[in-house]
Order: sequence, then C-alpha cells, then structure tokens
Amino acid sequence: MKLRVINPNTTQAMTDTIGQAARRVAGPGTLIVASQPASGPVSIESHFDEAVAAIGVAEEVLAGEREGTDAYVIACFGDPGLWSARELTRAPVIGIAEAAFHMAALIATRFSVVTTLGRTCVIAEHLLAQYGFEHQCRRVRAAEIPVLDLEHDPDASLRKIIEESLRAKEEDGVGAIVLGCGGMADLTEEISRAVGLPVVEGVTAAVKLAESLVQLGLHTSKHGDLDFPRPKAFAGRFSHFSA
Amino acid sequence: MKLRVINPNTTQAMTDTIGQAARRVAGPGTLIVASQPASGPVSIESHFDEAVAAIGVAEEVLAGEREGTDAYVIACFGDPGLWSARELTRAPVIGIAEAAFHMAALIATRFSVVTTLGRTCVIAEHLLAQYGFEHQCRRVRAAEIPVLDLEHDPDASLRKIIEESLRAKEEDGVGAIVLGCGGMADLTEEISRAVGLPVVEGVTAAVKLAESLVQLGLHTSKHGDLDFPRPKAFAGRFSHFSA
Amino acid sequence: MKLRVINPNTTQAMTDTIGQAARRVAGPGTLIVASQPASGPVSIESHFDEAVAAIGVAEEVLAGEREGTDAYVIACFGDPGLWSARELTRAPVIGIAEAAFHMAALIATRFSVVTTLGRTCVIAEHLLAQYGFEHQCRRVRAAEIPVLDLEHDPDASLRKIIEESLRAKEEDGVGAIVLGCGGMADLTEEISRAVGLPVVEGVTAAVKLAESLVQLGLHTSKHGDLDFPRPKAFAGRFSHFSA
Amino acid sequence: MKLRVINPNTTQAMTDTIGQAARRVAGPGTLIVASQPASGPVSIESHFDEAVAAIGVAEEVLAGEREGTDAYVIACFGDPGLWSARELTRAPVIGIAEAAFHMAALIATRFSVVTTLGRTCVIAEHLLAQYGFEHQCRRVRAAEIPVLDLEHDPDASLRKIIEESLRAKEEDGVGAIVLGCGGMADLTEEISRAVGLPVVEGVTAAVKLAESLVQLGLHTSKHGDLDFPRPKAFAGRFSHFSA
Amino acid sequence: MKLRVINPNTTQAMTDTIGQAARRVAGPGTLIVASQPASGPVSIESHFDEAVAAIGVAEEVLAGEREGTDAYVIACFGDPGLWSARELTRAPVIGIAEAAFHMAALIATRFSVVTTLGRTCVIAEHLLAQYGFEHQCRRVRAAEIPVLDLEHDPDASLRKIIEESLRAKEEDGVGAIVLGCGGMADLTEEISRAVGLPVVEGVTAAVKLAESLVQLGLHTSKHGDLDFPRPKAFAGRFSHFSA
Amino acid sequence: MKLRVINPNTTQAMTDTIGQAARRVAGPGTLIVASQPASGPVSIESHFDEAVAAIGVAEEVLAGEREGTDAYVIACFGDPGLWSARELTRAPVIGIAEAAFHMAALIATRFSVVTTLGRTCVIAEHLLAQYGFEHQCRRVRAAEIPVLDLEHDPDASLRKIIEESLRAKEEDGVGAIVLGCGGMADLTEEISRAVGLPVVEGVTAAVKLAESLVQLGLHTSKHGDLDFPRPKAFAGRFSHFSA
Repeated sequence: MKLRVINPNTTQAMTDTIGQAARRVAGPGTLIVASQPASGPVSIESHFDEAVAAIGVAEEVLAGEREGTDAYVIACFGDPGLWSARELTRAPVIGIAEAAFHMAALIATRFSVVTTLGRTCVIAEHLLAQYGFEHQCRRVRAAEIPVLDLEHDPDASLRKIIEESLRAKEEDGVGAIVLGCGGMADLTEEISRAVGLPVVEGVTAAVKLAESLVQLGLHTSKHGDLDFPRPKAFAGRFSHFSA
Repeated sequence: MKLRVINPNTTQAMTDTIGQAARRVAGPGTLIVASQPASGPVSIESHFDEAVAAIGVAEEVLAGEREGTDAYVIACFGDPGLWSARELTRAPVIGIAEAAFHMAALIATRFSVVTTLGRTCVIAEHLLAQYGFEHQCRRVRAAEIPVLDLEHDPDASLRKIIEESLRAKEEDGVGAIVLGCGGMADLTEEISRAVGLPVVEGVTAAVKLAESLVQLGLHTSKHGDLDFPRPKAFAGRFSHFSA
Repeated sequence: MKLRVINPNTTQAMTDTIGQAARRVAGPGTLIVASQPASGPVSIESHFDEAVAAIGVAEEVLAGEREGTDAYVIACFGDPGLWSARELTRAPVIGIAEAAFHMAALIATRFSVVTTLGRTCVIAEHLLAQYGFEHQCRRVRAAEIPVLDLEHDPDASLRKIIEESLRAKEEDGVGAIVLGCGGMADLTEEISRAVGLPVVEGVTAAVKLAESLVQLGLHTSKHGDLDFPRPKAFAGRFSHFSA
Repeated sequence: MKLRVINPNTTQAMTDTIGQAARRVAGPGTLIVASQPASGPVSIESHFDEAVAAIGVAEEVLAGEREGTDAYVIACFGDPGLWSARELTRAPVIGIAEAAFHMAALIATRFSVVTTLGRTCVIAEHLLAQYGFEHQCRRVRAAEIPVLDLEHDPDASLRKIIEESLRAKEEDGVGAIVLGCGGMADLTEEISRAVGLPVVEGVTAAVKLAESLVQLGLHTSKHGDLDFPRPKAFAGRFSHFSA
Repeated sequence: MKLRVINPNTTQAMTDTIGQAARRVAGPGTLIVASQPASGPVSIESHFDEAVAAIGVAEEVLAGEREGTDAYVIACFGDPGLWSARELTRAPVIGIAEAAFHMAALIATRFSVVTTLGRTCVIAEHLLAQYGFEHQCRRVRAAEIPVLDLEHDPDASLRKIIEESLRAKEEDGVGAIVLGCGGMADLTEEISRAVGLPVVEGVTAAVKLAESLVQLGLHTSKHGDLDFPRPKAFAGRFSHFSA
Repeated sequence: MKLRVINPNTTQAMTDTIGQAARRVAGPGTLIVASQPASGPVSIESHFDEAVAAIGVAEEVLAGEREGTDAYVIACFGDPGLWSARELTRAPVIGIAEAAFHMAALIATRFSVVTTLGRTCVIAEHLLAQYGFEHQCRRVRAAEIPVLDLEHDPDASLRKIIEESLRAKEEDGVGAIVLGCGGMADLTEEISRAVGLPVVEGVTAAVKLAESLVQLGLHTSKHGDLDFPRPKAFAGRFSHFSA
C-alpha cells in the first residue's frame, strides 16, 4: 500500500518530522511517501495560508495519482483543501484534524484541542462544527507558539504545550488532549506522560485511518459532490489544471 | 494483538458470521476472538433487548480482561453497553454503529443508514445525535427485516436491503450507505456492487479502528467519566460484579 | 391509582427516602409502591452501574405489570433503563432526571444541575442533549459526594450541595437548581431556603408527571419504537425474559 | 387551588370549551376559573393576533393576582405572552403548546403537531426550537382550518384533523400526535380512537402541569429574567400598567 | 425613500437620539421619520415591557402605512413585535438586534453583545438562537445599567459599557462588539476607540439594511406566515384593529 | 466609494453580467470595479474549482488594495476564499451566498435555495451551517444546469430555474427563493414574477451590504483570526505572496 502523506507547507524539516511520525505507526506493508508542494507557504497560520496551501495539496494529490497511490493524508491541522483533494481521486483522503477528532472521540467522551496560535482557533472550531464534534470538544486552546518555533525552539514549545494541556485537564473536565498541529507529531508520548491523559496526534491517527479504509476496500465516493471535477479550462498560472 | 469481537446476542450463527467478517479484514498480527455472552437475547431488536445485551457485553469484556485483551468490538448496531464497557477496561472499545458512522464520514459528505426493523431507527438516530453525525446522515431507513431472517432467509433479506439502499441513493442524495446490523457483515460487497455506492459495514470498520488505536498506543481514557467503576457491592444475580 | 417508584439501586435506606418523598407529594388517590430490585448495585455512580441497574428496573416494571400498575417512576438521576422500561408496559414511565428538567424548564428560563460525583456529569449531559434541554441548562456541576454519603454523612453532603448551588446561582446566571440525585429527595426545601432559588427534585417531580399522564388518559405509545418487545428466547441468567 | 385558564382570544364559546376541558381533568381540590380578556382578537391566527393577545393575557394575569391565584394556563397554542406573564406573578404559568410538547415527549420518542392554518406552522416551529423539542417533533402539519371553524363547522374540522393525523402516522414515523389549537380540547379522544395513536392536547396537559407545580411548591423563579418588571410609567392606553 | 424608525418606548429623548443616529448614516434620498407610540412603557427592560411595546410598534407601522412608508426599523434591542410588524406591511421591517447581529457577522467571525441589564440577556439569547447567530456570538454581557441611565447619567453609563466591552475583548476572544440597546446609538465611535474593536450598533445597522432592501426591490414576503393578518374583529381597547 | 466586485472565475461574459447587476443597484457615489482573476477556472462547479478560485480572489483583493478599495464582493455562490480575503484587507469583504442568506432571512421566515448543479448543493449546505442559516433554509435544490449554460442557453436555464423555484414554493413552504449562482444576477425579476415570491440574488445583495458597512464606518476586524496574515516566505509559483 502506497500512502502519500502531504505536508501542505514547504518546510522540509517539517515534512521530515511528519514522515517519521507516519513511518513510526505505519503497518509493515505500507510505503509512506512524505511530500510537500513545490509552491506555497513555509508555514500555515491563517485562512490565507490555508487557501494557498490547498493548491499545493491538490498538486500533490495529482502527483500521487500519476504514481499510483492508495491513500492520502493532509498533514496540517486545518485540513486545507480536504474536500477538493477528495474530488481528485478515488483513494481515501484524510485530514489530520478530522483524524485526531475521530480517534479522540473513540477513547474519551470529551476532549480539548491544544493548538499553536490563538488566531487559528477559529479554524479548528469551524472544522469541529462541520465534522460534528462540537459537543465532544470542550474547548480549543492555543499555546501561542508560531508554527516554525516547533522546529526552532522545541523545548520552549513543548513546555508551553504541556502547560496549556494541564490547564485543559484541570479546567475543561476532559479525558483526552488533541494536539492541534502537524509539527507536534513527535511530541505525543512526552506530553501524554507529563499531562497524564491520552494525547491524540493527527498525523499518526490519519495514517491508521487511511490504512484502515484501504484495507476495508472503501474509497472516496464518486457519487455526488465528491465526484471528479467536471473537466474544464483553467487560465494563466493554473492552465496545467485544464482538461 | 488480541481483539475480542463481542456479538451481544446469543445466536452462534451470527457470532460466526461476525467472526468471519472480522477475520477477513484483520491485520496479520491480530488474533480475533469472536465471543457471545452466555446469557441474553437471541437477537437485538428493541431498547429492552439492548439493555439486557449490555450486561452480556460487560461480562464478555470482563472475561476478555482476564485473558489479556488489547481491544474490544461490540458487534450490534445499537452499540449496547458501549460506555459501560469502556469503564471496565483500559483497552479501546469500539461499537459497530459508531465505527460505521466514522468511516462513512471519511469517504462521503452525506450518507444514509439502512437497518433492519423500523422500530430500531430511533436507536440509530439517538446514536447519530450523541456521536455528532446527525448532519452527515440524511436518513435512517428500515428494510423491515427481523434480525434473524438475515440468517434464515438471506436471499430475501439481501433483496430488501438492496432495494432500500437504492431508494436512499435516489431520494436522499447520499454518497454512501451504512449497513445497520451486525448480521449484514458478509453482504457488503454484493450490496455495493448492486447499488453503485460505497457500503460501510460496522464490524469490519470497528476491527480496523480498534487495531488502529492499539497501534497508536491509545487507550480508553481513565481520567473522568470512563475511569474504572468505583468498587461496590452488587446484590443477587449480579453479586459476581461485587468488588 | 397505583404508582410504582423504582429505586434502581439495592440500598433499602435510599428506597425508603425515595418512597417518603414520593408519598409527601402524591395525590390522595395515589398508592405509592416504593420498590428496589433484588439484584443490582448498592449505588449508581458510573455507566456500568447504570447498565446493571437497567435490568433491575426492567424486572421491577415486569413485577409491576403483574400486580397492575398505572405508572412507573425510575428514581435514579441517570434514568437507567428508561426506554427499555417504556417498551415493557402501556403505563407511563418517567425518569427523575427528565422529570426534573421538564419541571425546571417551566419555572425558569435557565437552570443548572448539581449532582454528586464529577464522573457522572457526562451522563447528565447526554440526557440533557437527548431530551432537548441543553440550552436551558447552563451547567452540570458536581458537589463531589459519593452517593451513599447522602445517607451516611447527610450534614456534610447538604453543606457541599448548598455551596455548589450558591456557586451556580452566582456564576451561571440561572433561575433554578436541579438536584441531580434521587437520594437528595428530602433536602429540597432546606437547599432552596439556603440558596434563594427554586430547587427542583426529580422524584417528586416525576410522581406528579406520572399522576398527570394517568389522569389525562395518556399512555406510552405502542406504535413504533416503544411497542412491546418482539417475543424471543433469552439464554442463561436471563431465560426468565423468554417469551 | 385556584387555577386561572386564560383563553387569550375574546370568543366566549371557545372560553367555554376550554373551561370544560380544564374542569374535566382538574383534581378535586382545583377551582378552574376560565377567563378571557375584555380586549383582543376573536381568534388568533397570526403573529399580529398573538402580539395583541399577549396584552390580554397580561391583564388576565394581573386580574388573577388581585383575586389570589395559584397558577395560570395560557390556552392558545402559540403561548402568546408566556414570558411576560411569568414576570407578573410568582405563580406558575404554563402555555398549552409547551405543555403538550412536554407531555408528548414523555410518552413517545417522536411526535408530530397537527394545527389549524399553515401560516401558523412557523409559530409552532419557533416554539419547538425555543423549548428544545425540535428533534422530538418530526413535523408541524396544518389541517388548513380557520380557528373559528372549530366552533362553526366542527364535523368538517374534525374530519380534516383526523385525515392530517393519519398522514402524520403514516409518513412521519411518530408515536403520538400533538393537537395544535386550544379549540380542539374536546376532540382528543375521538381523534385518538380514529388515528390509533395517543393524542396530546394542550389545555388538559397544562392544567395537570400547573397543578403539579403548585403541589410541588414550585413557583416561577424571581431571580433573573423572570423577576417582576421594574416599576415604571406607561403612557396612553397602557397607563394603567404604570407603577 | 421614507424610512420610519420606530422607538418602541415612549421617551422622547430616546426617540431623538435614535432619530439623530439614523439620520447620520441615512443615504441622501432617505427621509427618516423617527416616531414613538402614543401608548407604552417609558423604557423596555423586561419581557412584559416588550409585550406592551409590541402593540405600539404595530400602531406605528399602521400609521406608517397610512402615510406611505418604504421601510421600518424597530429600534429596541429585543426586536419587540418584529414578526407581527412584518405581517402588517409589504415594506421591509428590520429589528435593531437582528441588524446588529447580521452586520457583526460580516466583519468578525465571533462577537459578544454588551447590553444594559442582566435580566435582558435571556431576551438577546433567545433572539440569537432564533436568528441563527448563537455560534457567532460568544457571550451576552450586561453592563448593569438601567436603560434610562443612558440618558440621565451618560458618563457613568459609557464608562461601564467600555469596561464590559474590554472584558469581552480579553476573555471572549471576539473580533467585534455588538451594543445591546437602542439608546447607545450615539456612543459607537467612542466605545470603538476605547476598546480597539469594531463596534456594531443596531439603529445605524438597521437603517442601512432597510435602505438596501428597498433599493434591491425586496419586500417582506406575503406568501405564508408573513401574509397580512386575516381580517377579524377585535374587542375593547383594541377594537380599532378590527377589519 | 470604490467597490471591487470579483468574479472568481475567468469567464469575461460572466464578469460583465455580474458587473452590470452590481451597477444596477449601486448607490450614486459607488464606483463598481468588476474584475476577474488572470488565473483560474472558467466556471466553478466543485470543491476543487473553488479551491483554485480562492487564489484568484486573493490576488484580486491584493490588486484592489494597491488601488485603494473600500469594499469587496466575492461573486460566486460558494463564497470561495472568503475568510482568506478578509485577512488581506481592512475593507469589508462580502460573499454573495452569505449576502443572499442574510437578506432572505430579513424578508421571509423560511427560504429555499435554487442552485445550478446537484453536486454543489453540499457546498451551499456547508455555508448555511457555518453562517447559522440552516434552520431558515428549508432545502437546497438544484436545477441541474452547468454554470456556463447560464450564458450559452439562457432560455432553457431560466425555464429550469423557474420550474425548480415553483417546486420549492409548493413543497417547501417557503416565503422566498435564494438564487444560488452569480451568473443568475440578471434573472431575478423575471423569476420573481413567474414564481410569485421574492427572489434574492447574491451579487446585488452583496453590493448593498458592502456599501452599508462602508457607510457605517465598519471594517473587517483586525483583532484575532481575521488579522493580516503573518508575513512569511512562499515558495515557487506563489513566491509573489512572500513578505
């Protein structure tokens, strides 16, 4: 099984972190291809960054289709370009936010999210509402860490995440923590130990969900809104999407 | 990994069907133990049947704990005794209704459920609301088949399920069908072919979710409402639960 | 009118407290039969305790049916076995959580619940959502009292409940308090005086709702999901349920 | 116990019908005072009629306060002036729409409403949402009968209501019918027999709820939004409300 | 375009404040007619005040209809009599609460409301739910100012509103403030400067929405529940409404 | 006031239609700049088309910023790139779907949407849920017209839209129709006449809302999630977004 884990930003170090996390949990028959777009932002911290990253995600899915790919993971907590990516392939496509929410809901009645910057909390709230988890999630919290600090200053980042997670445990009455950033993929165990709660991380969760769907023979529905896009002309910079 | 798939009713043929379905999708390192309670109803078609079956589920979990078990599946579409079972173990416990809803939501924006008897539709609606899938599920439909007819008259049952699924496809605007009974576990492919939609079946979905959680090192949260029950005395027929 | 008030746990002192509370508000023509199951937990403080208690509730309803009973009350705040009990009889069946929520919603626009242990708050939240009161209830609070302490250490329990109710009054902006335990049935007036808010207690509320339904000639609907269970075989310990 | 049943419109025949329905179910110690405002519309079939009727309701509550009244019922299915009436008294105030919804939810998992004119369906929908019953109510249906036809052409009205109720039974999958008009108070039994479902009627339901609250010693909360209105000057036609 | 801005209370100074606010933002072709009912409360601070004010609103709409009016604004934050007013005219009718909510939702993902008295918060919450803004609004806050203090003690009122708005900014994570009273119409800029957030005020917002609808050629739908009321007799004090 | 109306697709004829519709309702002081991206799809009929169009929208906003622009309209019914566009400017940004929903909710209690292709209904449903209009909108209907047919075969398209709108009027019990495509901007009056309901079209609605916000001095909140994106590097095809 070939599983493409797409880091929607263009920072190689983060792609590496994500790829390692994916490989750590992948089954023996799964080949993890960790990729990142040629074009796009170095980190994703706003609606605008997400919109741009969605194009990179689409291109990585199209690249994956040319190579033969069995499933895709979109490894940014805002799930940028998720619906669009699903249209481009019959293979399952899993966002790491949705993956983490689904898994957390299976091991705890209530959870809280700890993410990077306060300004992205609304993005997570929109996803929780759209996916149906707004009652299971008590609160979306920000540790106020710029995304790339996860790479540049990992110790301080880790400390802030643990502190915010402990506040969630104490104040929110939750049974689990969802880590709200793809770049936190290697911190899960350490945070879980420090906080004393199960900690769900999206990259690893998404890899297992993607493998599961493939093994079940389930593919993205091509009946209705997720059918392949109607072929049409695209102008200018996007003319390579024309069909 | 030892995975106990609990058929909450006491019909051996259905346990066998469920066990076979589970083994068909289980990973190479997974040992499937298909079990059924010594006590309980031969089929589950009402709130009352569910209530009785929940005890059998609890006993099967306790039996599993004595043997060392890594995860549990509750293989009846009403997820009887799910919350209670989660209290009795640190291992993940997955209901087949929730499993099917989670998986369907990952491959289609909207789905419909096709279950056995009309009187159980409300049970599915209650679960959809509690788990947060009431917007993704367009409609819960009944093919009006008594559960054991799935064993006794499989051809007529299959025909009715396909007919109701085709109505769902035409009238509900959905991209996938969720099969609403553990006893339909072996019919998935045939229905999918006939209907032309992905068909999600809960037993197989739950097996993969349970394996996934184990491989992720995630266990049922023991902080809060899913902690082990406070030890106490039980009277009469349930005195074996005393601690 | 014969009204069976079922204490779902097996602690006689609590059955007595509940029976007295019921008799205090029952109409002149109402005979209160306070009963408890022969089998089950001595107190109900978890999903598992609830699941076991649901069987006792069913058996008490079946016993009531044999004697001729006009209505039933399930006197535990989690309403264990409510839907199942409704299937077993044409008589109205009222849970004390639902009764308290309904009554509170008629005298205050917003209320908070004060219950025993924090771990049971999720049970109350699930009920509020299922019954449709999640917007009327601002918050479910726990005084962190083990259920049987209500019997063993009533003074300390009362003090904790009053303190938590005062916090609800100050912080939640509510007009009424719902007491979240059947064992608090005799404390209502004292708490109301101390807190300065109407206090709704479920046992007494349920008795009046049950009487009301009987006097209105309304019975549990036998059309659809609450119809009598289909007769079937039950194995083992539950073979007495076979029909 | 003195219970004032307020017909919010000014049609004496309807007040009589309502009063008779109330007396039929009232307890032995309950004195029913059926009243109607001196001012207001002869029937209530629009938002505007409701707004005017709300004043009459307030005046009838104030009149009731002068006489000493233990509880009030607002006997129009839109519950006109309910919140305002609650501010004017410590006594419980029950609307017949809310009463019917509460009672129906206790005997059936799902119900439909059958009301008079299609244009008032939105009023019922608004109430269902505000009171929290939007999931229990499958559909609000209109038999398209002008309100006063219930008095003038009772046979045709009854036939239309039964027909619409039968459609609800067949199409909506419900276990009970809620009658959506105070003027239908005497038709309950006949409709129930013809339709084969429990039929909940609001006037009788509200009488029992009002009696229940009084017997429980529960009054309208005077803490917060239902406190007595701040005394102030009213100009012109409403100067008698000045304080 | 003739736009009638109805102050639902009978305090001339507040009508003047409202009229000035309306004129400040009205387009060049818009004639603002600021009016107040001959009858009704001097301020609106309760459900009861709202119910009485709704009659004044209806009468002002009927007066407007006789003069030829293109649109109406109801300038009290509870939108009293909104649905009723819409029935009485084909012209658009806009409440200032709804106007403020709509506008705030266009410039910020989340907002909080700062209103006068705590007891009216529930009124705003009911409107938010009915109009569909309950997720965009984080919290309804009260500065605890009696409405007429806005006229009598403007400096203290302003200070309290700014303080509460700053708390909203800090604690609620919102991007905008909605001012919850018609009498605050002239304070918008000062509060916005002091708080550092966009501040949305309903009178001005409603004027622009009303003008917009007129310029779009859109009128209140007369198909269904907002159709003109069926003509009928009104008794007593309201006999002038008879038709 | 300079108002940029962005057609997110690259079809000049549609930009012209949209520009004309905008100018028809714009105020005398408003300069309408109708623009379209240099790059992107010729029509928008899928999640993928939307994702690509969101980049064009962002670029058109950035172009508008360089010229000085007071407000923006995104003239495609899926509101592609709305949140991202709001981050890039202090000026108000209005999507035509949200504009139409807001306006429809002001003139009718319930509305239905009539859009082009069935596969885009889910996009509208997601927006209705996110914006809070899911209860006001009864149903999203598709006339099954490819977007460009609105230009190529206007007569057949018009006929299909009218037929579907008449079905909405008859079956959905709504008071208004929302047209679900930017390319329908010139058909409003004709459809309204044929259907006998107010018809709300998004381009014209959005122009008036944008003008209104500017005239109110309200800008997109720069506090929190809509603040300008943090400056950062973008790689490859998007390096011009680097800052």
